[in-house]
Amino acid sequence: MFQKRYATPGTAPATLDPLPAACARKPVIRLIEYDLTHLDERVIPSVAELPDFPDDGRVRWVEMNGLGDVDELRALGHRFGLHPLALEDALNTGQRPKMEPYDDHLFIVAQMIYRDPERKLCGEQVSMFLGKSVLVTIQEEDEIDTFQPVRERIRGGRGFIRKLKTDYLAYALLDSIVDHCFPALEELGESIEDLENELMDKPSQSCIHVLHEHRRTLMQLRRFVWPERDVLSALLHDETGLIAQPTKIFIRDCYDHTVQIMDLIESYRDVTAGLLEMYLSSVSLRTNEIMRVLTVISSIFIPLTFVAGVYGMNFDYGDGSMPMNMPELHKPHGYIICIGIMLAITTAQIIFFRRKKWL
Amino acid sequence: MFQKRYATPGTAPATLDPLPAACARKPVIRLIEYDLTHLDERVIPSVAELPDFPDDGRVRWVEMNGLGDVDELRALGHRFGLHPLALEDALNTGQRPKMEPYDDHLFIVAQMIYRDPERKLCGEQVSMFLGKSVLVTIQEEDEIDTFQPVRERIRGGRGFIRKLKTDYLAYALLDSIVDHCFPALEELGESIEDLENELMDKPSQSCIHVLHEHRRTLMQLRRFVWPERDVLSALLHDETGLIAQPTKIFIRDCYDHTVQIMDLIESYRDVTAGLLEMYLSSVSLRTNEIMRVLTVISSIFIPLTFVAGVYGMNFDYGDGSMPMNMPELHKPHGYIICIGIMLAITTAQIIFFRRKKWL
Amino acid sequence: MFQKRYATPGTAPATLDPLPAACARKPVIRLIEYDLTHLDERVIPSVAELPDFPDDGRVRWVEMNGLGDVDELRALGHRFGLHPLALEDALNTGQRPKMEPYDDHLFIVAQMIYRDPERKLCGEQVSMFLGKSVLVTIQEEDEIDTFQPVRERIRGGRGFIRKLKTDYLAYALLDSIVDHCFPALEELGESIEDLENELMDKPSQSCIHVLHEHRRTLMQLRRFVWPERDVLSALLHDETGLIAQPTKIFIRDCYDHTVQIMDLIESYRDVTAGLLEMYLSSVSLRTNEIMRVLTVISSIFIPLTFVAGVYGMNFDYGDGSMPMNMPELHKPHGYIICIGIMLAITTAQIIFFRRKKWL
Amino acid sequence: MFQKRYATPGTAPATLDPLPAACARKPVIRLIEYDLTHLDERVIPSVAELPDFPDDGRVRWVEMNGLGDVDELRALGHRFGLHPLALEDALNTGQRPKMEPYDDHLFIVAQMIYRDPERKLCGEQVSMFLGKSVLVTIQEEDEIDTFQPVRERIRGGRGFIRKLKTDYLAYALLDSIVDHCFPALEELGESIEDLENELMDKPSQSCIHVLHEHRRTLMQLRRFVWPERDVLSALLHDETGLIAQPTKIFIRDCYDHTVQIMDLIESYRDVTAGLLEMYLSSVSLRTNEIMRVLTVISSIFIPLTFVAGVYGMNFDYGDGSMPMNMPELHKPHGYIICIGIMLAITTAQIIFFRRKKWL
Amino acid sequence: MFQKRYATPGTAPATLDPLPAACARKPVIRLIEYDLTHLDERVIPSVAELPDFPDDGRVRWVEMNGLGDVDELRALGHRFGLHPLALEDALNTGQRPKMEPYDDHLFIVAQMIYRDPERKLCGEQVSMFLGKSVLVTIQEEDEIDTFQPVRERIRGGRGFIRKLKTDYLAYALLDSIVDHCFPALEELGESIEDLENELMDKPSQSCIHVLHEHRRTLMQLRRFVWPERDVLSALLHDETGLIAQPTKIFIRDCYDHTVQIMDLIESYRDVTAGLLEMYLSSVSLRTNEIMRVLTVISSIFIPLTFVAGVYGMNFDYGDGSMPMNMPELHKPHGYIICIGIMLAITTAQIIFFRRKKWL
Repeated sequence: MFQKRYATPGTAPATLDPLPAACARKPVIRLIEYDLTHLDERVIPSVAELPDFPDDGRVRWVEMNGLGDVDELRALGHRFGLHPLALEDALNTGQRPKMEPYDDHLFIVAQMIYRDPERKLCGEQVSMFLGKSVLVTIQEEDEIDTFQPVRERIRGGRGFIRKLKTDYLAYALLDSIVDHCFPALEELGESIEDLENELMDKPSQSCIHVLHEHRRTLMQLRRFVWPERDVLSALLHDETGLIAQPTKIFIRDCYDHTVQIMDLIESYRDVTAGLLEMYLSSVSLRTNEIMRVLTVISSIFIPLTFVAGVYGMNFDYGDGSMPMNMPELHKPHGYIICIGIMLAITTAQIIFFRRKKWL
Repeated sequence: MFQKRYATPGTAPATLDPLPAACARKPVIRLIEYDLTHLDERVIPSVAELPDFPDDGRVRWVEMNGLGDVDELRALGHRFGLHPLALEDALNTGQRPKMEPYDDHLFIVAQMIYRDPERKLCGEQVSMFLGKSVLVTIQEEDEIDTFQPVRERIRGGRGFIRKLKTDYLAYALLDSIVDHCFPALEELGESIEDLENELMDKPSQSCIHVLHEHRRTLMQLRRFVWPERDVLSALLHDETGLIAQPTKIFIRDCYDHTVQIMDLIESYRDVTAGLLEMYLSSVSLRTNEIMRVLTVISSIFIPLTFVAGVYGMNFDYGDGSMPMNMPELHKPHGYIICIGIMLAITTAQIIFFRRKKWL
Repeated sequence: MFQKRYATPGTAPATLDPLPAACARKPVIRLIEYDLTHLDERVIPSVAELPDFPDDGRVRWVEMNGLGDVDELRALGHRFGLHPLALEDALNTGQRPKMEPYDDHLFIVAQMIYRDPERKLCGEQVSMFLGKSVLVTIQEEDEIDTFQPVRERIRGGRGFIRKLKTDYLAYALLDSIVDHCFPALEELGESIEDLENELMDKPSQSCIHVLHEHRRTLMQLRRFVWPERDVLSALLHDETGLIAQPTKIFIRDCYDHTVQIMDLIESYRDVTAGLLEMYLSSVSLRTNEIMRVLTVISSIFIPLTFVAGVYGMNFDYGDGSMPMNMPELHKPHGYIICIGIMLAITTAQIIFFRRKKWL
Repeated sequence: MFQKRYATPGTAPATLDPLPAACARKPVIRLIEYDLTHLDERVIPSVAELPDFPDDGRVRWVEMNGLGDVDELRALGHRFGLHPLALEDALNTGQRPKMEPYDDHLFIVAQMIYRDPERKLCGEQVSMFLGKSVLVTIQEEDEIDTFQPVRERIRGGRGFIRKLKTDYLAYALLDSIVDHCFPALEELGESIEDLENELMDKPSQSCIHVLHEHRRTLMQLRRFVWPERDVLSALLHDETGLIAQPTKIFIRDCYDHTVQIMDLIESYRDVTAGLLEMYLSSVSLRTNEIMRVLTVISSIFIPLTFVAGVYGMNFDYGDGSMPMNMPELHKPHGYIICIGIMLAITTAQIIFFRRKKWL
Repeated sequence: MFQKRYATPGTAPATLDPLPAACARKPVIRLIEYDLTHLDERVIPSVAELPDFPDDGRVRWVEMNGLGDVDELRALGHRFGLHPLALEDALNTGQRPKMEPYDDHLFIVAQMIYRDPERKLCGEQVSMFLGKSVLVTIQEEDEIDTFQPVRERIRGGRGFIRKLKTDYLAYALLDSIVDHCFPALEELGESIEDLENELMDKPSQSCIHVLHEHRRTLMQLRRFVWPERDVLSALLHDETGLIAQPTKIFIRDCYDHTVQIMDLIESYRDVTAGLLEMYLSSVSLRTNEIMRVLTVISSIFIPLTFVAGVYGMNFDYGDGSMPMNMPELHKPHGYIICIGIMLAITTAQIIFFRRKKWL
């Protein structure tokens, strides 16, 4: 998720380098025209065949999905007067979310976070050019259609979407992008909870690995959502007149959602940090306990074994001429006394360990 | 406490989805009308039967407790001109505390923290619509009535509450919400103190677990109180005229309480962080001590045991033809010399350990 | 030091609840009237007997020490037009230092930190109402009179105090409160230095305990001094006209002192954090050293003991019919060879440990 | 990379001390003159031979590569009215990136980060004086020509570079400087990924060393890029009129790149911090596991060895007159019973360790 | 370096307490008068004998070195109209660097950091009163004359110093103070590098001690340089007219130096933090390695020693009447089988340890 396309240092700005063939998807261009009473959806073969857009108050949404044809992109830029630098940003995906005002339109970059069919987290850049009556969106992917519910709402014609202009349409797309984070975070939250139980139950190296994966995912989400919040804030305080007052109330709501997402992310980060801390302190306590057992058992039995070893030595005993060698072995009750000494040593040690609270 | 209801991504904003049946409580609607001389309390069967509100300077407090009937909520919104997005936030509880100005009213979301009868910390969202002469509050729960003391104050008619307007009533409710944090925090503080004693006395894994529970609770409290402070600050600097100057002095006092609560939370966080640190350093010191005992005893007795083992070997002794095999065993005073060597080794080691300050 | 009196949630604001009898000290009321030429000090039996204050340019300082009589406090509030919320804050001690402007006076809360006769750090709240010609101060304690030097300066009549107005008197009290932190901090600093020496010399669990006590004390001091700085800054930028320009130069000096105190506190915090770090790293290094000794000795002698053990086994030797059993024991030079093998093992291990730098 | 030339304390400001001979490269002066239709490149032997610059709307780029001749530098300053302090900063390389407005020109210091032919990260200071129609750049190095692509773009005459003025040329150089960070960071990222695999596979002291090298590199990059961002922001909000509006759109794009680079650097810092944490927790877990094995094996076998040692003692057995000495050895089934006791001890211990989850 | 003189709490502000005799140096007063053409240096016996200063455009620098005579200080204050609070700050050295505007002069406190002849870091307070035509400086020390180079520049008459006014002289002194940090930091940096090598080579407790000394020194430097930066920034934005525009360009340069010093300090702090981290992780890894060796050797040989111990037991063997006792000892090949079993145990353990990657 860290990858970002960048131009070779020193090349002229706003150069549109064709993508490597591997990830170049042929663009699909769709046009949706609507107003309160009218709705028209078409797939357009190429930018050149886009019809003229009369000034009839209709909202027009031009979607280009697929970045494989640099010429089409250039044509699109030419048709709608888009700045080459903005087109470059739309082509070189992996940009930070941002909002840039141009003369007669706003350029908005957003990063959609969604789960692919295998439930892996993916990111996809959505670039929008928001004009008075036209909204141009550029995406890389066409197959995973996360905007389908918005299109359905346009078709259904209920709610505010057909009554309001391109600014509301842009809001609806941004809102859909932002709201996709909630289920992704919910799933992450559940996974963190599972991990917590596992860590308490049977800590292993792989738990720690998963924990760090989660932390890194949270970090990345934060890096995408934080500037998205700034984008929404910038739209909220927009003074170009492209964002109407009623739409701003909706954008405020969407801004609120990003704040909630940031809150959730921060909560999860704190929880994972706490898990790591708890895990480390638990490992440290366990090591301490293990050492305590080892120390108690070793300290008791190693001296005893030494005593036993001493009386297992084979110095000439039973030979009257060397009475100095190991006379204890020939004393009556020698064995009993020896066992008694061992018991005394053991008792002393147990008392010592008890006082240290190691037993 | 992390749960939050959210709409499916892509659905139209301000959609009021009915709650799952399990947690849908039938709404109870209460109306309290009062001015300095007059007081009237009624339970209203449904929003449709709310009486007209003449412009007679009386304060009217409409309470809807229970979110189980989306139609009633919608009717309430219609009756008082509430924005659908605000209604959605009132329905989807778990919102961040916030204050949003609308044309002729303020929308305030607060989170009440209180202890349920089993002394568990609970949170409940209180949504308020503060108009010129009407205060509408929406809550999920009806049984645990944390606003009872405020109602009693209205009935009692003493103090400022009957003299001032809806803004003071809203303040009284917010003040009650904020002040509920103090006893909750006090109890938490006592629990932390108990934990400190336990940690010093007999550290165990479960202490650490409880410590992290407390840290997480503090984190969550902070997450709710922090934006509540912003809400109060926003009310304090309100310029819509809905908040009168005398009420602002009270709101400043309430704002002060949130600052004190934040201070307490920060203190507790620092204390718990210190506890964790102290606990870790104490475990580390104990492990060190345990290791020292193990090392001293092992280092002294393992070499001695080896020496004893050597003289326990059964190489043919007492056989004149192999005089090289273990002649020490047959030397007079061999045993005494052996014990002497052992004592020398032990003394050397004790001196070594003393110099290292391990003994 | 964490305790704070708070009202039961839901009670009306500005309720003056009598204190529990245990800590309710009967109030002592003192009045000091002075101008450049005149000085009059009296103890007043009750608020009702306070004389009228003509507008004669004299400074009047009304001290109420002791919070045991709520009615007296209420009477004081009534006499000088003090807001009930401010009186509540004066009664419920443990407030955060703050400055609140009211119509014709400023309400200032400060926390005096001083050492009691047993050299324990104590805190006491001082509430001030600063009017044009009257300064009212409310304290809990009467016996430990930290303001005595200020009173002496008034009596002495030297310096600025008799020339300037109530604002300078309030400054003099605040300056005295702030300057009390210096000796307290100096003592703490010496105690930290002692601790450092002890930690380096003979680390023990109790050092860590004391270290954390100091850290907690610093934390609390910071929590009191930080808002005190804001109070002084607010006075410095006061625009009500109650603070004259010449006094502001003095307040700037006092503000400077709080900044220096914050600096000292931060220094001490850094030092204690460094001590903890150094202590942990030293424990960790010691454990490492201890383990090294244990490992070297065990690794050398345990295999040797095994070899000795093998030749201490009692398999039938000396019996010609089972020549396979332990023939080494009957070889000439068997013992010498065995000792040689042991030496070789030891040498190999010593070389290994040398290369690892463990020896 | 920390080195910075500084003047001896107390010397007059703006003193141009000659560099030590070792690193003094003879300056090479190049002049490029161009407008939309005209292009002229020359190498100039000395500043004195720079031609007059008529006010003909052409852009002139004066490059001085090499700081070995202080007199030439002084002459350059004299020719273009540069402030002695700025010249001093150009000479004493290792400055923090900054932008300082002077009367009729802007002084810009930037730090170019690039990989030398051995792929080591290097830094080189580029100082620019941006006037209305002249851009003066001063560099230390002449051989590694990182500005070659920009020169090619001037020669090629395509894009914006020949149409716009000195401000665009300065932007093109800054953009080239900023964009050089991307490949450097990409390589660092790959190196971090390799390290991660190595750390998981076979952690060693050298990994930690490399990890810290990387952290330090990131720290340094951050220290250079952060102020570069401020430089670009200052240019973006420039009000001297030296930066034209169309160029500002390009500078905004370049500013964006610095933000992305900061983002990348922060990501890498977080990743390396996570690696270190994961590594420490993994070492701690491994130590715990190792200790567990040691403890289990020692605790089981040390007591058993003691029992075996006891019955290896040589107290006089087989002698009817001292029946107290080790009668067990002469009991029938003594051996079997002894083995049975050993098994019982072992079983008890295994059950104990199982319950502790150490087995 | 933490020490700071402070007045007894409660004493009147601006009291000039004589210093303890031990550190009271008799003041030396010097007067330097100069303009572009004129230069006059004198030592003045006492403040009373300072000549009158006609308004002739000359710059006058009055130096008082030594704080031992409070009366002289008071006389100085009286002569130049200095505020008693400022004089108190000049006397009670150890102040935080600050700039305070008074009616007709600026009061500047700076802390000079320099190495004494034994290369120890020292700090000395320099207090300046910057008036229209007089600069008064007050220092504690007279012997270590760090301002000598500035005096030489005045005498030499080259550069800007004789052309500009008191503001430039004050700048020159501040610049000299700031630039003294560079060599001090350079030396510290070299010491840190040495420490790094030592830590990697042969870590010991004393390294950690030195490391923490360095960290504390950096902390203190930061505490002095940070407010010095604010002082320069305040001078840069001065609006009293005492700082002329041309001087501000020089002050900007000096401000820049403080930023670079802060950068260096932060770099060093990061490096030392990294060293500590690396050191801890290396100790932890070493402990792990040591434990691994101990565990492998103990786990292999302790069980083997037990087996050898069993067959060293002295149960009655060779006695046909008790065939159950240790029949293995009498089996042909018993010894070989026993050795075989030992080898099998060893092999199993080695395979186990290999799979765990401990070997």
